[in-house]
Formats: sequence, C-alpha cells, structure tokens
Amino acid sequence: MPIEFTVDEHVARLAGRVREFVREVVVPEEQACDGVLHDGPEPLRRRLQQAARDAGVFAPHLRLDLRGQAVVFEAAGYSLLGPLALNIAAPDEGNMHLLAKVAGEDQRKRYLAPLEAGEIRSCFAMTEPAPGAGSDPRALSTTAARITGGWRIDGRKWFISGADGAAFAICMARTGGAPGDAGGATMFLVDAGNPGMKIVRNIATLDEGLFGGHSEIAFDGCEVGDEAVLGEVDRGFDYAQVRLGPARLTHCMRWLGIARRAQDVALDRAASRSAFGRPLEELGMVQQLIADSEIDIEAARALLWRACWELDQGRPGAQHTSIAKTFVAEAVHRVVDRAVQICGALGISADAPLSRLYREVRPFRIYDGPSETHRWAIARRASKARAAVR
Amino acid sequence: MPIEFTVDEHVARLAGRVREFVREVVVPEEQACDGVLHDGPEPLRRRLQQAARDAGVFAPHLRLDLRGQAVVFEAAGYSLLGPLALNIAAPDEGNMHLLAKVAGEDQRKRYLAPLEAGEIRSCFAMTEPAPGAGSDPRALSTTAARITGGWRIDGRKWFISGADGAAFAICMARTGGAPGDAGGATMFLVDAGNPGMKIVRNIATLDEGLFGGHSEIAFDGCEVGDEAVLGEVDRGFDYAQVRLGPARLTHCMRWLGIARRAQDVALDRAASRSAFGRPLEELGMVQQLIADSEIDIEAARALLWRACWELDQGRPGAQHTSIAKTFVAEAVHRVVDRAVQICGALGISADAPLSRLYREVRPFRIYDGPSETHRWAIARRASKARAAVR
Amino acid sequence: MPIEFTVDEHVARLAGRVREFVREVVVPEEQACDGVLHDGPEPLRRRLQQAARDAGVFAPHLRLDLRGQAVVFEAAGYSLLGPLALNIAAPDEGNMHLLAKVAGEDQRKRYLAPLEAGEIRSCFAMTEPAPGAGSDPRALSTTAARITGGWRIDGRKWFISGADGAAFAICMARTGGAPGDAGGATMFLVDAGNPGMKIVRNIATLDEGLFGGHSEIAFDGCEVGDEAVLGEVDRGFDYAQVRLGPARLTHCMRWLGIARRAQDVALDRAASRSAFGRPLEELGMVQQLIADSEIDIEAARALLWRACWELDQGRPGAQHTSIAKTFVAEAVHRVVDRAVQICGALGISADAPLSRLYREVRPFRIYDGPSETHRWAIARRASKARAAVR
Amino acid sequence: MPIEFTVDEHVARLAGRVREFVREVVVPEEQACDGVLHDGPEPLRRRLQQAARDAGVFAPHLRLDLRGQAVVFEAAGYSLLGPLALNIAAPDEGNMHLLAKVAGEDQRKRYLAPLEAGEIRSCFAMTEPAPGAGSDPRALSTTAARITGGWRIDGRKWFISGADGAAFAICMARTGGAPGDAGGATMFLVDAGNPGMKIVRNIATLDEGLFGGHSEIAFDGCEVGDEAVLGEVDRGFDYAQVRLGPARLTHCMRWLGIARRAQDVALDRAASRSAFGRPLEELGMVQQLIADSEIDIEAARALLWRACWELDQGRPGAQHTSIAKTFVAEAVHRVVDRAVQICGALGISADAPLSRLYREVRPFRIYDGPSETHRWAIARRASKARAAVR
Repeated sequence: MPIEFTVDEHVARLAGRVREFVREVVVPEEQACDGVLHDGPEPLRRRLQQAARDAGVFAPHLRLDLRGQAVVFEAAGYSLLGPLALNIAAPDEGNMHLLAKVAGEDQRKRYLAPLEAGEIRSCFAMTEPAPGAGSDPRALSTTAARITGGWRIDGRKWFISGADGAAFAICMARTGGAPGDAGGATMFLVDAGNPGMKIVRNIATLDEGLFGGHSEIAFDGCEVGDEAVLGEVDRGFDYAQVRLGPARLTHCMRWLGIARRAQDVALDRAASRSAFGRPLEELGMVQQLIADSEIDIEAARALLWRACWELDQGRPGAQHTSIAKTFVAEAVHRVVDRAVQICGALGISADAPLSRLYREVRPFRIYDGPSETHRWAIARRASKARAAVR
Repeated sequence: MPIEFTVDEHVARLAGRVREFVREVVVPEEQACDGVLHDGPEPLRRRLQQAARDAGVFAPHLRLDLRGQAVVFEAAGYSLLGPLALNIAAPDEGNMHLLAKVAGEDQRKRYLAPLEAGEIRSCFAMTEPAPGAGSDPRALSTTAARITGGWRIDGRKWFISGADGAAFAICMARTGGAPGDAGGATMFLVDAGNPGMKIVRNIATLDEGLFGGHSEIAFDGCEVGDEAVLGEVDRGFDYAQVRLGPARLTHCMRWLGIARRAQDVALDRAASRSAFGRPLEELGMVQQLIADSEIDIEAARALLWRACWELDQGRPGAQHTSIAKTFVAEAVHRVVDRAVQICGALGISADAPLSRLYREVRPFRIYDGPSETHRWAIARRASKARAAVR
Repeated sequence: MPIEFTVDEHVARLAGRVREFVREVVVPEEQACDGVLHDGPEPLRRRLQQAARDAGVFAPHLRLDLRGQAVVFEAAGYSLLGPLALNIAAPDEGNMHLLAKVAGEDQRKRYLAPLEAGEIRSCFAMTEPAPGAGSDPRALSTTAARITGGWRIDGRKWFISGADGAAFAICMARTGGAPGDAGGATMFLVDAGNPGMKIVRNIATLDEGLFGGHSEIAFDGCEVGDEAVLGEVDRGFDYAQVRLGPARLTHCMRWLGIARRAQDVALDRAASRSAFGRPLEELGMVQQLIADSEIDIEAARALLWRACWELDQGRPGAQHTSIAKTFVAEAVHRVVDRAVQICGALGISADAPLSRLYREVRPFRIYDGPSETHRWAIARRASKARAAVR
Repeated sequence: MPIEFTVDEHVARLAGRVREFVREVVVPEEQACDGVLHDGPEPLRRRLQQAARDAGVFAPHLRLDLRGQAVVFEAAGYSLLGPLALNIAAPDEGNMHLLAKVAGEDQRKRYLAPLEAGEIRSCFAMTEPAPGAGSDPRALSTTAARITGGWRIDGRKWFISGADGAAFAICMARTGGAPGDAGGATMFLVDAGNPGMKIVRNIATLDEGLFGGHSEIAFDGCEVGDEAVLGEVDRGFDYAQVRLGPARLTHCMRWLGIARRAQDVALDRAASRSAFGRPLEELGMVQQLIADSEIDIEAARALLWRACWELDQGRPGAQHTSIAKTFVAEAVHRVVDRAVQICGALGISADAPLSRLYREVRPFRIYDGPSETHRWAIARRASKARAAVR
C-alpha cells in the first residue's frame, strides 16, 4: 500500500455532517456559554447532545480508528462546544477509551455505558500539587492502603478537569513503592458522593472550562471496595500510557479545529475590513500572517495524521506522538495569535470568538507534557536512534 | 556630552522608593482586585493613592522628563495596580500631559488640577467603530456642528478605556472636512452627566481593565459650550500627536515593569521547583527561556530610553518611538509567555499573577498602532532616509 | 483507501539500496570535489554514475511516481553528490521529465535517451536579467523570430545551472506578444556549439555548483530549425508549468536529504564531544536544537509527501506544492544552521561537510520562487477558498 | 548625569571622516580582494593603511574610549576591509589592547609600537583542538616547561586567525596545574621564525579571512627566553579576560557596520527593482523585512553602547557584555539574511557583496563564546541576582 492521503468515504461523509452540524447548530449556541448560563451548563450540554443525536453525529469515536477520529474531531473542534455536543470532549473521551480497554464487565455497565450515552460525565484524577505527580508521573504521592474488602485512598489532586459535576473519578494512587518509583500505581473508580472525596476548590485558569474549570480534590480516608479497582492492582502506570498516547492526539485533533476556526474568522475580517484604501487581505504583511497560518495548519495536520497512523498500526509511536503534540500545540497557538492580530481591536474583544480561543490555546503547550519535556524526549530518542546505526 | 546610561541620582532615589512601595503596599493588594471588589474599584483606587501620597511617590510624572519617567514608571509597572496608585495610569496620565500643554487657564483649574490630585478620572474618546477612526485617525466620522454659543457632537466611539466612572471625556470630533481628510478635527471637554453622552456598553476584552474595561460611547446631540473646546478649533489632529508620542512611550515603560515582574515570578519558581532531580533553573531549556527574557528586557529598556532621549531633546523621534513601541510590545509579550511556560500549570492558574499579566499584554501589539502599521512606517522612513544619501 | 504512510515495499527496498550506496560509495568521494579536481568534474560524474549502475540504483526516477521519488531522492540527497550519481540531479532530472511529456519521437531519441543514459548533460534557459523573466515569468524578453525553415533567437539568460558543459539547452523565448503577456512563449532545443549561443560567464554564487555554477548566456542571432521547437509553438508557459510543479518537489526531496545528513553529523558530534563535563547531547540547549530539527524534518517530509500525493492523483496541487516548497526550504535551512551551531568551530570549517551544506541551502529560499512569492500565492488561494464557502 | 545618547563631537567628526573614507576609498577596493590578489594581500593592506593615514583616520582606537570606538568602528565595519585599513581589525586590535595593558617597556617597543604603526601583524594563539581549550579555556593543554633562561612550549593550537604572515604570536600555555584547572596559564610572545612554531595548515572556513583564514599551529619544543613572558607567569587567564571583554565588544562594533551595509544594499535594491508592477520597497512583505532589520540594528547598537558604557565606567560588565554579544551576533545574522532575501538571485551571487557578508557573519554566533554558552551565563547571573533580593 502506498503513501495515501485520501480520507475514507464514510469518514469524509461523517466529517461533512459534523461540519454542517457545528456551523448550523453549535456555533449559534456559543454566545450563550460566554455569558451567564442561568440554568447552568448541564442543560446546555444535554440540549447540544440531543441535537447531535438528532443529526446522527453523536459519539462518533466509537466506530472510528484514530485517523478517522482525526478528521471528524477536527471538524467538531471548530467550535469549543463541538466536542461537548458530540460527547468527544476531554476528559470523558479519554476515559471512555481507557474503560473500553481495561474495565471489567460490571464496570463497563456501570460507568462506560452511561458515559457513552452522555448520561453522565467523569474526570481523571492523576495530577498532584508539587512535589507530587506532575510532568513526572512517578512522583505519585496519593496512597491507597489495603483495608478489609477494599482500599483507603489518601492524597490530594489538582487541575482535575471536569471534576465539578462528574459522576465518578478515575483516581490514580500508589498501592506499592514510594514516590519516584516506576511501578506500584493502581487506578480506582470513585463515585461522586463518596464522603472521602471532596472538591476543595475550582482553580481559576487562563482557559475557561465550561464545567467549573479545573478542580483541586482532596482524598481523605476515601474508602472504596475491591470492585473499584480498574484493571489490575499495580498496573496503573501502564494504563496511564494506554490513555495518554491517544488522548494527546485527540487533544491535537480538537485544537486543530480551533486553529481552522480562528483562521476563518481572520480571513473573513481580512476580506471585509479595509485599511489605507485596500482590503486587509491585499496587504503584504497580512498575507504573510495568513500564509504562515495556512502552512502551520497543513503541517500540523500532516504530523497528526502521521502519528495516528503509527498508533493505528500498533506501532509504539511515542516519537511521532511527541512530535505531533509539540508542533500542533505551538502551531495552534501561533495561528490564533495571528488571527487576533489581523482582527485588531475586534480580535481582543468578546465581540469575536478569538479572545476566548486565545485564552483556551495557551495552556496546550503545558497540558499533556510541556513542550520542553517532549523536546527532551524527542532529542533523546533521536540520539539513541542515531547511535544504533553509527 | 558622551553616551551615558547613568540614572540621575534623584530619579534613582525616587525609583527606589517606588520599587519599595510597590513591593510592600501594592503587590499585597493585587489579590483584592482579582476577586470580587465588594465596594467597587473606586475605594481601592483612593486607598492606594492615599498610600502613595503617604509614601511620597504620588504623581511623580509632573517633575520628571521622559527619561526619568522611564525609570520610575517601570518601577511602578511592576504591579498592574502600581500606575493607578501613583496616578500615572493610562488614560489619565496622557490626558494630564495633553491638558498641561494645551488647556486654557479655566480648563486647567476645572479639569487638570483635580485630575493631578487624583480626585477624578478621565477618558480619551477618539477611536470609532469601522469605518471610522481606527488605525487611520483621518477616518474620523464623529461630527461637531456649530450651534449658538457652542457645538453639537454626534457620533459613536468605542474601546474608550476608563470611560465608566470618568468625570469627563476628551472627545475628538470633526469640525471641518470629511472622513479621510487630514485636518478639521477639534477636541472637546465633555462632562460626565451631559445628557448627550451615553455609555452604551462596556466591551469585554482579553485584558481586564479595572474600571469597566473599554466602553462604547454614543454622542447623540451632545451639546457643549464654546469653553469646552480644548485648544483651538480644527487643531485636534495636532494635539493628538502631542498626546500620542509620549503616551506610546509611557505605555512601554509600564509594560516593561510587567515584563520584569513576570521574569521575577519565573525566576522564583525556577529556583524553588525541581524536575528530574534538579531545580528548574539548572535545566538548559529553562536557562534558555530565562536568558532570552533577560536579553529582551535589556533591549526593550535600551530602545525605550533612546526614544525618550530623542523626545526630551525636542527631536521629531517618530522613528525611534515606532521602533521602541514595536519592540517593547512584542518583547514584553515574549517575556510573559516564557514566564508562563516556566511556571507550567501554576503559570496558567490564578494562583500566580502570570495568567492575568498574560491577558493584559497581548493587546499591546494592537493598541497605540498595531505592529504592522509601525513596521510599515519604519520601513518607509528607512527607505526615504537611504534615498536621501544615495 | 484510508490515510496511509506505509512506503511501498519495492520503493523501500530501492531506497535502502540507495542509502547504502550513498554511505559506502558517494560520501567517501565528497572530499574529492571539495578540493581541486585535477581532471575536472566530468570524470567524477562518470565514475559515480558507473558505480550507481553497478549498484543497480541508476536513474530510478523513470520507474517511480512522485511519492516513490520522495523516498528515494531523499536517500540520494544525503550527499550533495548522490543525485548526480543517480542521474537525478537538477536540472537534468526536470528536463527529462519535461522531454518525456512533450518531446517528439526524434527529439526523444536525440536528447532524452542520452540524457537518461547519463551520456550527456543539459540545461534549462528561462531566467533573464532584470527587467526580464524572473519571479514573474511573463516578463519574458528573449525573442524568437520566424526565419525560413526555422527561428532566430535573441536575448540574454542568467543563473542557468549546469550550462557549462551541457550538450543542449532548453531555451524559452517569446514567439508572440510582448513582455508582460501571459502567452506567446515557445521552448527550443538548442545544441551546444550553435554559434549563436554563448556562455558569457559563470556567475559566482553562495552555493557552489559542481559544474561551473550558474551561467550567463547570450543568444545573439541564434538560428535553429523547426525541429528545434519543443512541443508546440506558443505553448511554452504551459510546458514550464509541467516542468516546474514536480521540479519544485524533487528539489525538496533532495534538500530533505541534506537536512538529514546535517542532523546526523550534529548527532554524532553531540554524542562524542563534551562540554562542562557532559556530552553535548545531554545539555538542554543542545537537546532543544536537536528536537527542533527532528520536528522540522518530520514536518517537511509530511508536507512533501502530501504534495506529491496531490500531483500523483492528477489534482492541481498548486497550494500544497507552494506550502511544501516554502516550508521545506526554510526548515532545511534551519536544520543545517542548528547543526552548524552544535558543531561549533568544526561546523564552520571545511573539516566537516556542514559549511558546504550551509552555503548550498541558503539559496533554496530564493530558487523556484522566493518564499515571499509563494506566501503571497498561498494567502490569495486561502482567501479565495474561504470566499467560496462564505 | 542623565541618560544621554549624544555622540561626543570629536567622535562624531571622526566617524564622519571614517564613513567618507570607507565609501570613497575602501569600498571600491573590495572587488580586488574577492578575486585573485596577484601580489598577495599584504600590498593591499599597506596601500589601504597608507590611504587611511593620508585621510587622518589611521589607528583611531588609541585615542577613544569604548563608546567612542563603538561609533567609529561601526563606521569602519561598513566594509570588510575598513577595519584592516584603519588597523583596528581582529586579532591585531585586541592584541594591541592587551599589550598596552600588560607588556613591559621592551616588549612595547619591540611588539606594540610596530603593531600600532601597521608595520607588522600578529596573532593570538589560545584555542586548541579537542579536548583542549575551546569554549572552556581551563581545558588548556599546551605546556610551557622551565628550561635554563626560558621556557619550552609544546602543544597544538587551531583556528588561529591571521597566523599566516604574522610577525609574532601571543601563545597561551600552561606553566602550572593540569587541564581543567582555573589557574596556571602564562602568555608568551613567540616570534615568527622560531623553529619550534610551525603553521601546519590553514583551515578552510565559511568566512574567508583575508590572510589565510584560520591556521592550525604546532608548538614542538618551541624555546623562548624569559623576556618572552607577557606580564607575569601564571596570570595568563587574568590577561585573557583583559583582552576578551573589550574584544567581544569591538567585534560587535565591526559586525554592526556589516549589518548597516547589508541593509543599505537591500534598501537600494528595494528602491530600484520592481515586481508585480511596484517597487519592492512598496510591497508589504519586503517592508516587514526592512523594518525588522531597522529594529534589529537599533537594538543591537543600544545594547552595545550600554555594554561599552559599563566597561568604560570600570564596572564588571560581564552580564551586559554577554547580552550584547549574543544579541548583536544573532541580529547581524538576521539582517544580512533578510538583505539576501530582498535581493533574490543577486543576493546569493558575487555580483553583490551580500553572499560574502553572509558567509562572514554566520560564525559570529560561535566565535567569542557560542550563543548557548553566553545564554547559560546570562541565566545563571539572572538567577543569582534574583536570589540576592529574594
């Protein structure tokens, strides 16, 4: 089979439907969630997801490989609300992937099924305040101690997206070893309402999550039964990899949609607004901004597809995933930044979606491994690969 | 007199006092204005300004040339609240400069004196929605028509900073010619409460002004007397230049303080936080971020001082002002962006001041002439200068 | 057919053989052509091409589509002499492509066959000194006037690569219209030795062509018969497009090989050289340089493959070709620049191949359309595409 | 004394004369040294220096502080031959500075006087092949062993600029300690013709030195008398600092002249050459290149002047010197690169001086400490400075 950039016909058709759905249904809802949501975000989510079901675009990830997801998720990402509507937003989408791979029968019924159906939301509780698990997951400090018939979890997590309102958390805790060790982690399914799990606060961040942003959570003598163990004891770090690789890429897919949206807003503005007697789109410096963003978007997409293909083939794909993540996060930021510049005062006002997108994309260079950590890993792998053939 | 970078002793002493005042008094107040101000921002302003008076650092601009201001304003800009405390924040500081140069005796008593004393605030109403006065001021569309004993102003302004709560506006309106003409503008002093001047809305923007951000204002049959004319009729564009040149530079001074603050926050974090077994400040990629920011800050300061010197000498200084404004706005943004990256998740959370600074600095590349307009002007002047010696 | 990055097995095998051939046979010859070639470059070319024949890797382009060429040409480009050895160097490779598409039976026998066999070399005479055909081909000023039984060509060409020693030139001349017109150009096959075609000088350039660099050629009453017309009269601009699209991409393929070579040289150095007590490859700033080059190489390759696929499908592909050309030319430059930096003094000395590569790659951002022209075209196409769906 | 950018009148007058001399006398000679110099470079040097004496601009550094040198050297650097003509080229200029500070009476007569008069040339032999003294001078491996009445030097040096034809070398050798130690180095004055000092080869480099480029020198049982010791035994590292600080800055001054020259060549081209119906200088993307170079030049000059001022005040100045060196070397490279791009094919041909300048400036980011080493030092000093006030 040769190098091939054709998109499968059924994927192309689905992506086309998603594009139309986002443009016709989701984008008009955006203003709502920028202002005050008098009935909270939950009704908005239910309304959007029902519309997606009606349009036949709900939960498309369940029947697509990563390359197919790349095309469809980018289309959905064109609005910040798109992934929510299609039930492919983080962290639920990554959790579904993880549960589908690791959960037992009962757990699938109880957690995965309603999650796929959009009946509940979830969160993934791994990151801890310093000196706990951050860019180095092995620093995991939260502990799960054996008690009769179950476990008692103690520790603190933060920057846990979507925790506020989630029906359950997947909590990573140390069942063996000490902070710094490469093994000994276990994942637990903890139900909201467990008296030992408390949301301490919602951390205000540059990006405005729709659902209370990113929470700090205290696990304080949080007792769970044996049936709460996800997969096997002590295999938590392995499962984290199962989740993280594809989750990085699905993040990139959604971000790419944001970049395309920003570029379109900028192109519209450049066509309609004049300066010094000519439309902006005919001014050389504006053309340079536009062209650089086109190049960035194309390169981001090509690298992303490449990484998806690697994972779809069952190859390790760590190098391609790191490269794609680093480039896409930085390229998306550049594209939105250029769009803001082209739109001028409008670009930084809430009258256009750009300032919202701008706040949303800056953290991408930090989330899922900061660019520096990925560059370090990329360089090390390059050095090793070269040493192997020297 | 040779090239000289010594700071005058009295300026150095004053800057030292300002630095201490900001560190001891202003920075601790920052949390207050990030959260809810139950009694509104005005009490905060009065409290801070009284503290500045007590510390002997209030309104220092009245006794400094631009080079002196460069040193002192940078020290004040270390906190977003610093310039407010010292009564050297935009737009009041620029308005004071303008009034001091152009206002008549009565106007000075009525507007300048209480402004200098911090008793009132003001705004500057020039920018208009498309197709009015934007990056091209000659597109001015608001009109002032002669009536008996005065003028009637009609038109719309937007992105008018500080309008909400201002005691008066300096409004630019066309008393002659048509949009596109290089002359025919006049400045008017319009009191808040004039029934013909209404704040339509406060435009939400990426940067969060303390006082309602940036307003849209409607002038609708707004009648003012002859004594409302600032300076002479039809000389508004000249006066705008009087205000704009130094105002661009004082903006840069305050921004530079922001950059220094961000860098210090990053340095503190890099010293206290470890990754992979070493403090961040010992990791090469972090050192590169730190070094690049040091270089940016030094270059920004040197270009700024140069432009200030040009204006202090009474030279035209347009080229040096454009160069300084363009470089400083972009450098400050890079410095804050790098600081965010060094601080990671903390950098994008409200637990550190960086995410607030980050939102604040992006618009600098657009305000006071977007980088592209300045580059266009810089290139044209360079071409002309070269042609002259060819 | 889904998105696919597998390389066809026969292509992969061929590329593997080329890689080995370049490493074992071609790289060791490099020193020879950096110093004085006492018997001139022609014997070197013949020796290398014979070795390529013996290794079964000669003239591989004749049996590969563009995607296959992308893989194989990159492998050949690992040495500046590689493409020469395989007979896929510019301008011959592009001329073969053009002749294969357009030449008549007799022309194929007389020009294409010996060219494919490596018996002769050729050149492509299109570019003219200002105000002639440069980045704007329509400025074509060289004329071909009808004479009995043929044409008389008058005009001047420059930067004609490989002219010195070429057996024939493909000369573009105006048979109709005037400079600035979009039509009226015809291609002529002019034999070396025609008394009306003279090499005026070889222009010294930053890149050192192996064969006299880039020549300036005078056509002065140069008479050719009707059989010298390539394809049809007045269709020269169409044929130029036939040649240019793929030629841009084959250039990119060879350049990419240069980038990979530079990166390998840098990786070897970073592994063997220490500073401050650690191998360079463990220093963060060096890792950043290495990682950025890996990212650049991967993105360049992905964009290039994409553009090749577009042309292989028979699509227009102008946008993807422009994007690939612009990105690859700039990325290759960055990669070589970083490699020079990593290698330090060695990097700028002739003791390593980098300084030679460095000189070679700078012109890529100018040849085949400067980056600015491509960006202008990319922006215009983006604006049009957006307008179509608005 | 306030911040001041006025250039002293006598410096301004001198710089004016230098500018005129370079334009009228030196630039016309440039073509000569790009081609074959049938009588070698030495006659050219003597001719140019006599012309400089006649014009009253010879050896101006002897009567200027660093700020004055900054202005005059930049004027001289406008041509690559300018510093040679004025006898302020590296390495002679740095050696004169060192000798003036450290040499004894006899040494001054014998070495300094004829050097200042332009009668002889010299070289500075410090850098060694790996694992010797490179970016880390303490790795010094060349030894000087005590013999009766003098010393015997053994070791190998390379990248020694101007060695070919120099009347003497200042050789740094270890008289105590072992490679890696921070002390124990001594400087020796070694006459050309000493049978123990041999030029092994001239290393071909990207930049083409006028005098045989950069040599590799073998010290093989090289015997010198006690009078050959420069300053005191074991103080070589101190003296190296005496030489290096100002030498870095004088390098920057000359480079800045190169940048200004490149920008002028580009401005001339942009004024005279048209594309798409308009002069290049009116195209937005070209204007951006021009403006960015103006900004770079102004920032480079401001940082350079600042560092000069620090040293002129007798302050340590290491941070400002590092910042200036790093920024200037990179900015100069960008300026020349942009000029090449603006000039297109002409820019990479020897028909314009740019390709020569381009080759010349790349090594600046490596010479006198690579950018990475300076950034490391800048970051460390910034961290320390912050820790001190924390």
